[in-house]
Amino acid sequence: MMRIVTRLTDRLKLHHPIISAPMAFASGGELAGAVSSAGGLGLIGGGYGDADWLTREFERSGNRPVGCGFITWSLARNPRLLDKALERRPSAIFLSFGDPAPFSPAIRAAGVPLICQVQSLDDARRALDAGADIVVAQGAEAGGHGEKRATFTFVPEVANLVRRRAPDTLICAAGGIADGRGLAAALMLGADGVVMGSRFWASLEALVHPNLHQAALAATGDDTVRTSVMDLARRLDWPSRFSLRVRKNAFTEAWHGNEAHLLADIDAQSAAYREAWASGDPTIAAIMIGEAAGLIHDIEPASDILLRTVSEAITLLQGASSLLFVEDNCHSQ
Amino acid sequence: MMRIVTRLTDRLKLHHPIISAPMAFASGGELAGAVSSAGGLGLIGGGYGDADWLTREFERSGNRPVGCGFITWSLARNPRLLDKALERRPSAIFLSFGDPAPFSPAIRAAGVPLICQVQSLDDARRALDAGADIVVAQGAEAGGHGEKRATFTFVPEVANLVRRRAPDTLICAAGGIADGRGLAAALMLGADGVVMGSRFWASLEALVHPNLHQAALAATGDDTVRTSVMDLARRLDWPSRFSLRVRKNAFTEAWHGNEAHLLADIDAQSAAYREAWASGDPTIAAIMIGEAAGLIHDIEPASDILLRTVSEAITLLQGASSLLFVEDNCHSQ
Repeated sequence: MMRIVTRLTDRLKLHHPIISAPMAFASGGELAGAVSSAGGLGLIGGGYGDADWLTREFERSGNRPVGCGFITWSLARNPRLLDKALERRPSAIFLSFGDPAPFSPAIRAAGVPLICQVQSLDDARRALDAGADIVVAQGAEAGGHGEKRATFTFVPEVANLVRRRAPDTLICAAGGIADGRGLAAALMLGADGVVMGSRFWASLEALVHPNLHQAALAATGDDTVRTSVMDLARRLDWPSRFSLRVRKNAFTEAWHGNEAHLLADIDAQSAAYREAWASGDPTIAAIMIGEAAGLIHDIEPASDILLRTVSEAITLLQGASSLLFVEDNCHSQ
Repeated sequence: MMRIVTRLTDRLKLHHPIISAPMAFASGGELAGAVSSAGGLGLIGGGYGDADWLTREFERSGNRPVGCGFITWSLARNPRLLDKALERRPSAIFLSFGDPAPFSPAIRAAGVPLICQVQSLDDARRALDAGADIVVAQGAEAGGHGEKRATFTFVPEVANLVRRRAPDTLICAAGGIADGRGLAAALMLGADGVVMGSRFWASLEALVHPNLHQAALAATGDDTVRTSVMDLARRLDWPSRFSLRVRKNAFTEAWHGNEAHLLADIDAQSAAYREAWASGDPTIAAIMIGEAAGLIHDIEPASDILLRTVSEAITLLQGASSLLFVEDNCHSQ
């Protein structure tokens, strides 16, 4: 039995260097528990701060060691939710989309690892200032919320910054990682591990309507868009720098680029959106899949996804040296 | 002496799996020749079709084996330029940003390898239909023209398509590759080699005004933007799906998102732009650097860039197996 050992597996005592993203609404206790059982780190999506939901999902994770993630700007409006999460003795707290500084002291005092996901170099500096144990560099190819940098350049640039300023802080890559190629590539770019969102969103354990799952499987990576129209319809006041990557559907085609008209009819559109979300209507509801959609072809158990990703990456890392050729005489062309 | 051997080095008889992008205006014969001399494949940027410029730059490449690239929609307006390039017996013809089908027969008849750069899956299918020998999957992090897909997901998705439909066709990655981490990661994602643009744009041999070089070195990857305002000012009628990634400057800040006002004053603004380009005014002229800007810290000889990139990638590929740990008993968590 072979596995991939990095600073991340050492530090968090994981079997595999894979974390499941704490996706609001989709990452419940069952998904987080399945990922942790398989040897990764599963995170419950604390999302927009429903305390009852959080309690229930922690219970659903069973006795498995899971962590919890929050949308930082939303947590700032209801900071006591963090105490609730810390009471569960989580394996880690994951903060993204806002300033982690106000929450860092309580997390550190509880002895819980702090994971900060960042979308810009300024975010990365802020994460280091807050004492993050792990900085996750998230590229814009990610499904769900994100910003504009691409994983391929952002990970090494954040790695350079972190190694210079806080060499003991770990680096993970997020955005576009859906198979062993992505895991192996992320390690080459300087990451100690990866955060996978879309790939686990498309798992049996994710809390996703089957219609939305099917709509995502039918998509290629060319079929997604970054937009704010679903957030407008959901009346979530996200900071304007962040947008949502979803599969294009009738709703994005109607309103993306046409936001003023959406806002002019927002009461009716919000009601229609809520109804579509409840019934899983994929022509309106947000299909929260990233550009990795084109690499995802089945809804599978999370443990199968995780173990296959690791196995594919092991094959690639083992084979890497076979690309190298030693010659006695170097003939430059 | 160790080197990286892939299907690309075998097929094109290169020493290293690195191609320099045929950047319009910047990739002259000196740069292409230097890259080929160092063991990669150097490409002259045929750009918008100036026959005298092309002849001169082929002469400047000396007797070194270089290829030539064209902006395909522009070549379609002046197709005889391709004959001029083929007369020079180029190592390859590289086509991007348009339909390669009209040009493929002449290139294949001349026995010259055809490289097609693609920005979507439809482009990739079109490249295969045209008989491309190499498909380059270009991510939007690239400097200069491009579209929207990110390298990290686009390369493996194109690799899947190409392997299914034309397994003998090679795959290269472009967009965001500026060091050995990028080269090693691209190989893990399924590429046979890489096309590097920004990194060679920032070389001693590139035809770039020193002021623009200095402005690019001062940028991080967060400082770039995809925009069409420079193309409007240059009166280049690019198809609307393609935009230009540049470092943000006063010109993009003034006009990006404000294109109607730019067009209303286009005569004066175009004249000012031309003047700024000639004098190398970095507040107005396009600083054609991609998101890799944050990984580029010096203007160096192209051969140094190429050989260091290879050397860094070799170290990573050699070290890949050290991430693997064999255990007798598997303790799942």
